[in-house]
Amino acid sequence: MQPEETRYDRGLATMRKMFGPGIDSALKSLEAASPDLARCLVEFPFADVYTRPGLDLKTREMLTVAALTVLGYPQAELKDHIRGALNVGCTPDQILEIILQMAVYAGFPAALEAVKTAASVFGESAEAKN
Amino acid sequence: MQPEETRYDRGLATMRKMFGPGIDSALKSLEAASPDLARCLVEFPFADVYTRPGLDLKTREMLTVAALTVLGYPQAELKDHIRGALNVGCTPDQILEIILQMAVYAGFPAALEAVKTAASVFGESAEAKN
Amino acid sequence: MQPEETRYDRGLATMRKMFGPGIDSALKSLEAASPDLARCLVEFPFADVYTRPGLDLKTREMLTVAALTVLGYPQAELKDHIRGALNVGCTPDQILEIILQMAVYAGFPAALEAVKTAASVFGESAEAKN
Amino acid sequence: MQPEETRYDRGLATMRKMFGPGIDSALKSLEAASPDLARCLVEFPFADVYTRPGLDLKTREMLTVAALTVLGYPQAELKDHIRGALNVGCTPDQILEIILQMAVYAGFPAALEAVKTAASVFGESAEAKN
Amino acid sequence: MQPEETRYDRGLATMRKMFGPGIDSALKSLEAASPDLARCLVEFPFADVYTRPGLDLKTREMLTVAALTVLGYPQAELKDHIRGALNVGCTPDQILEIILQMAVYAGFPAALEAVKTAASVFGESAEAKN
Amino acid sequence: MQPEETRYDRGLATMRKMFGPGIDSALKSLEAASPDLARCLVEFPFADVYTRPGLDLKTREMLTVAALTVLGYPQAELKDHIRGALNVGCTPDQILEIILQMAVYAGFPAALEAVKTAASVFGESAEAKN
Repeated sequence: MQPEETRYDRGLATMRKMFGPGIDSALKSLEAASPDLARCLVEFPFADVYTRPGLDLKTREMLTVAALTVLGYPQAELKDHIRGALNVGCTPDQILEIILQMAVYAGFPAALEAVKTAASVFGESAEAKN
Repeated sequence: MQPEETRYDRGLATMRKMFGPGIDSALKSLEAASPDLARCLVEFPFADVYTRPGLDLKTREMLTVAALTVLGYPQAELKDHIRGALNVGCTPDQILEIILQMAVYAGFPAALEAVKTAASVFGESAEAKN
Repeated sequence: MQPEETRYDRGLATMRKMFGPGIDSALKSLEAASPDLARCLVEFPFADVYTRPGLDLKTREMLTVAALTVLGYPQAELKDHIRGALNVGCTPDQILEIILQMAVYAGFPAALEAVKTAASVFGESAEAKN
Repeated sequence: MQPEETRYDRGLATMRKMFGPGIDSALKSLEAASPDLARCLVEFPFADVYTRPGLDLKTREMLTVAALTVLGYPQAELKDHIRGALNVGCTPDQILEIILQMAVYAGFPAALEAVKTAASVFGESAEAKN
Repeated sequence: MQPEETRYDRGLATMRKMFGPGIDSALKSLEAASPDLARCLVEFPFADVYTRPGLDLKTREMLTVAALTVLGYPQAELKDHIRGALNVGCTPDQILEIILQMAVYAGFPAALEAVKTAASVFGESAEAKN
Repeated sequence: MQPEETRYDRGLATMRKMFGPGIDSALKSLEAASPDLARCLVEFPFADVYTRPGLDLKTREMLTVAALTVLGYPQAELKDHIRGALNVGCTPDQILEIILQMAVYAGFPAALEAVKTAASVFGESAEAKN
């Protein structure tokens, strides 16, 4: 057994738990663009970092929503992680609360952009339930 | 009389003066996504900050155009504030001059993104006049 | 009773709970530089945001440590909030875990700068105990 | 002969070498929005900086791809410079390698956004060849 | 007459008007580190941009104080431009007002860092008068 | 043989080649603050990324100098990587050229901060030779 495969498998399992089985096709499309970045993404953030015992997955997703709100430009990644946060136990209200708090640290434009992204995710979930 | 309402009213009046009556529907859509962020936005930036006597509204909008150009990612907010700047007395040439100066502090990509947004606002105004 | 005072009092109480009584002299020094920014700081982040029920203080401080790590430049504020996080129940290991996770979202330089700041706070606490 | 024209001509020649003759219409559209920013862009980055002897054009474009990946928000400029990098001798694999390395310094969201942009440019080139 | 010298002379004259005669030794120290960056700095921002007629020098310095506050990391440049703003007619209260407004767009950490820098400049001016 | 050790060993060897044997004590001090971040740093950037064949070490260090100049706040990491760039074959003039080019993409404050850091490294090297 090759050790590299083990990290990849652990990372992929974490991604499926966080993002649902839809992650497989998203990952396939990233692999088509850059197989090496896809591999690094599975192995470093999701195998090495998210699986560490120090914080539970829900807390980690909350921190990531905060981080992506502060960065401001990566709304596509924020969308994925808001979905992920909902999947691992965050409520929509908690996500909105995180975004509101980030207005203090990164300004209102950061919060306004993130709220639009959050609303679009919550809209999808509502539609999916009907 | 509830004190919180007074701040809200003052903020809403400032927003209408800056952005025109169209702000009411924009605010309604933000309230649908996050009523608390909408309230904070009306009360902190627009009631507490923009109404302060130290700088006039036109100067404040020029500073905000500079700030949003530097941040780079919030082009939707920049669009709103370019409209606001025009409403409170800035000329299109002054807005382009601010954006050009920001090339010095945040680089040419920031200025190029902002100029595209400014041109789209100026185009709307020109159309509205015809 | 002036409504503004109520927000200020609530904000100051939150700041003392988070940062300890040492916050009073830090606030006095900020007031000497800009009394209006000091007032806004007490009233908006600490009265309006941190007292909201949606997230507990410990979670809020964790999110703020993440936000300041991502921003990178505000190491003085990060230092204060790492102290605050310890005061409201975070462990040093949790703070290091947050910083490590931020390497994924803002890169290793952000995490390395934050770890130096965290180590300096943990060093103070260790000294204070001896 | 006016000296200002000399810088402009040298800048324009550099831009054509880097971006191909298509740059003329892109520049015309920028000139319509802000003739002064267009002139500054031709003269400062492309006449004063890119023509300097210290680094060859290929290395300069690699550095610019790194810079734009790190900034994150200017994906339109990144698209132009990925095309430029290909024109002056970079391979698609080198561009992907630069983007992957930037995950270390600006985080995975920066790299993921840039990879999508790179893939869209490589897709165009592939289509153009067919 | 060499055309390049004219831009340099015009830029240097602008810098002396904005920063006072002390700028000569600051520039000498930059020239020792990188003569080419020093020349670009004199020629592009201070000859090409600050001398343009569209905005007066006082407004330009206010915009620059806003921009540097938003960027957060360049406190040394912010210090120079706060001195410059005072030299071309800004009051300390206006500078503090700009910084306070930036809390809305770049968050409180940006404003807090800038206020400390402003206070250190105002302290120098007060000392110099005694 | 444990697979994790192999990545660590490869990363450490790369770090020694880039930064010289002095890296061992810097790493020890990071390990004292956060052993896990130290391990991630050795393994992900230096074992997984810098050892990849697509770009040589000198090019990689040039890209990193560009990235850190653009980020602006991590001057300590920039200092290390300027030393690293010199160690793997960059000349001081090439480093200054990279920094000058970054004025175009991240603005003059970014370039000015980086030039000061570069000058301090070049000063050390000059002293060490005497």
